[in-house]
Amino acid sequence: MYKLIKLEERARRGEYSTPHGTVQTPVFMNVGTQAAIKGGLSAEDLPRVGCQVELSNTYHLHVRPGDGLIREMGGLHRFMGWDGPILTDSGGFQIFSLASLRKIKEEGVYFNSHVDGRHIFMGPEESMRIQANLGSDIAMAFDECVGIPAERKYVEESCARTARWLERCKEALNHYTSEDGAVNPGQVLWGINQGAVFHDLRIDHMKRIAELDLPGYAIGGLAVGESTQEMYDTIEALEPYMPADRPRYLMGVGTPCNILESVHRGVDFFDCVMPARNGRHGHLYTWEGVINIKNEKYARDDGPIDPECGCPVCRRWSRSYLRHLFKAEEILALRFSVMHNLFFYNSLTEKIRQALDAGDYESFYRRNREKLDRRI
Amino acid sequence: MYKLIKLEERARRGEYSTPHGTVQTPVFMNVGTQAAIKGGLSAEDLPRVGCQVELSNTYHLHVRPGDGLIREMGGLHRFMGWDGPILTDSGGFQIFSLASLRKIKEEGVYFNSHVDGRHIFMGPEESMRIQANLGSDIAMAFDECVGIPAERKYVEESCARTARWLERCKEALNHYTSEDGAVNPGQVLWGINQGAVFHDLRIDHMKRIAELDLPGYAIGGLAVGESTQEMYDTIEALEPYMPADRPRYLMGVGTPCNILESVHRGVDFFDCVMPARNGRHGHLYTWEGVINIKNEKYARDDGPIDPECGCPVCRRWSRSYLRHLFKAEEILALRFSVMHNLFFYNSLTEKIRQALDAGDYESFYRRNREKLDRRI
Repeated sequence: MYKLIKLEERARRGEYSTPHGTVQTPVFMNVGTQAAIKGGLSAEDLPRVGCQVELSNTYHLHVRPGDGLIREMGGLHRFMGWDGPILTDSGGFQIFSLASLRKIKEEGVYFNSHVDGRHIFMGPEESMRIQANLGSDIAMAFDECVGIPAERKYVEESCARTARWLERCKEALNHYTSEDGAVNPGQVLWGINQGAVFHDLRIDHMKRIAELDLPGYAIGGLAVGESTQEMYDTIEALEPYMPADRPRYLMGVGTPCNILESVHRGVDFFDCVMPARNGRHGHLYTWEGVINIKNEKYARDDGPIDPECGCPVCRRWSRSYLRHLFKAEEILALRFSVMHNLFFYNSLTEKIRQALDAGDYESFYRRNREKLDRRI
Repeated sequence: MYKLIKLEERARRGEYSTPHGTVQTPVFMNVGTQAAIKGGLSAEDLPRVGCQVELSNTYHLHVRPGDGLIREMGGLHRFMGWDGPILTDSGGFQIFSLASLRKIKEEGVYFNSHVDGRHIFMGPEESMRIQANLGSDIAMAFDECVGIPAERKYVEESCARTARWLERCKEALNHYTSEDGAVNPGQVLWGINQGAVFHDLRIDHMKRIAELDLPGYAIGGLAVGESTQEMYDTIEALEPYMPADRPRYLMGVGTPCNILESVHRGVDFFDCVMPARNGRHGHLYTWEGVINIKNEKYARDDGPIDPECGCPVCRRWSRSYLRHLFKAEEILALRFSVMHNLFFYNSLTEKIRQALDAGDYESFYRRNREKLDRRI
């Protein structure tokens, strides 16, 4: 389902087909954790910001409103009114970052909901059942995301368990998608590589999960405490062992520069809450760097956020108006900022694809990697 | 500029032309106090909810970001990206409801800003200068809005002062709009009738301000403490004294039923924060009454908010999804609710106009006045 179109050094231009359409890669997936994009954006706005894939969260939707309810409402696509590709993460990461009183056993994880404290058990089978109920196009493996720094011995044990869990995930998702009345019979499972920053553990784990011959593989457990250089080094060491004919997804990463560096190292899929979160604080991406729109100097600035940007906000409204909306604490400030920042991220990956198509990625990467993350 | 198209008893079907387009009346104006609609709606959304006139606030915009800044940015239309008609209220009402340490003198009002406490003076000339800087199509007179109950003697004095202020308003706005570089040379002034619920004072005041031959007249100082019946009775007593060839605007009113009753009594223009405020609390208007979307019974309701509604939300999303957005505290809940409620109000006045066109208003009014305000 992944087609490699062009290679420039390690950087890959490709496409990936799903039951809800084909995705051009490299791609940035737009996060709608609770089946809604932050900043008041709806599924109707997603095409306008250039979104190709929407990403929702298994853990959050299981807790509220419940995956059974979403299944009854026809699945996540129908529930949120989005007919394009959806990826759901497995809940693993959220259990380890949000839930309390976690107990990890061979069968899965016992924990308390962050919303109402109720006891929940989630293992590979439960995560797959939930994701099957949601009916996403890509279901992610249920894994343990180990924070960094981590003990080598613990990471080894955890990787082994995550690999065993992956086999159970594969079997369970096969079961659920072949049932009568499956929400999305074409739903597939992607594996997740773990191993913290121990290159040999990453590679061993990758070899083991590659045997399951899944249609996609993610790099999980990065951007969780290590340095940016350690992250790049880990990707670089791991990449040769990832199947070349399958997409690679770097989970939860990152800044525009992180994306440029990771494409350079062979990654295809990205997601991150950063553009929405930064937008809500008035930090807006431009092709010259990140501006803080609340700054006094924009009070009488009649120009758009970024003169090079073609987003719905830049086409019609000024920095002056957007700054006023923040100062006046109008919700529209959040909507405009998230809209612009998501458009920027989607446009960044579009330009990456164009550069790859033109065989010009190296120069695009060198020209932009220094400036996009800087505060100006 | 007002053209009476059709009369059914006292109910009037008309149109009113402004420098930014012609308004079909009766009309509900959509409130964007601080140059932004609540719930994250932008000027781009206004046509989609059927908005004909946007209403902004002189006092709020003077305090923040400042009317001088908006003038520099090309005026309010350009600042907020809305090319249709704009009405600005004069600031009078807000000074009396929001500001602290008010002192009313013949020259105007001394008060402290509700944002930063700074001392501000506003009289008729200041209000007109601010509204000229904003460049709205309709500027409202600077008046004193007296709360109810009120002493008859105080109301008499206040009405007399408001009438003297109106003469100064007319002169000042004439001056500002004929200056070189006026933001909107076609801007006009509407007078505001006061007099609490003393019918004779209302009528005397109306006679006096009618002499100024202004292109529109508002009924101010209602829905500020009197009973609904007293409000209707006051409108009914006053209406015969309002110039028949000028539009009548009932300020800050009201529920769908209030609008039906007031159209029945000869009113043409309305505005109210209610659809946005109720929307933010999950109270949604339907043609059967008001529902609370947070109610448990909507958790698995796959239907639209209102099966008869053609708004962007009802066309694509379910009650179940909207309830989830509220429970999950997503900003999108506010956007969808405000969008639906504004569409409902605009659609209500559209149906009123259709009924008047068909000579059928009486029956439309009787059929709907009992049910639209009720909670179901």
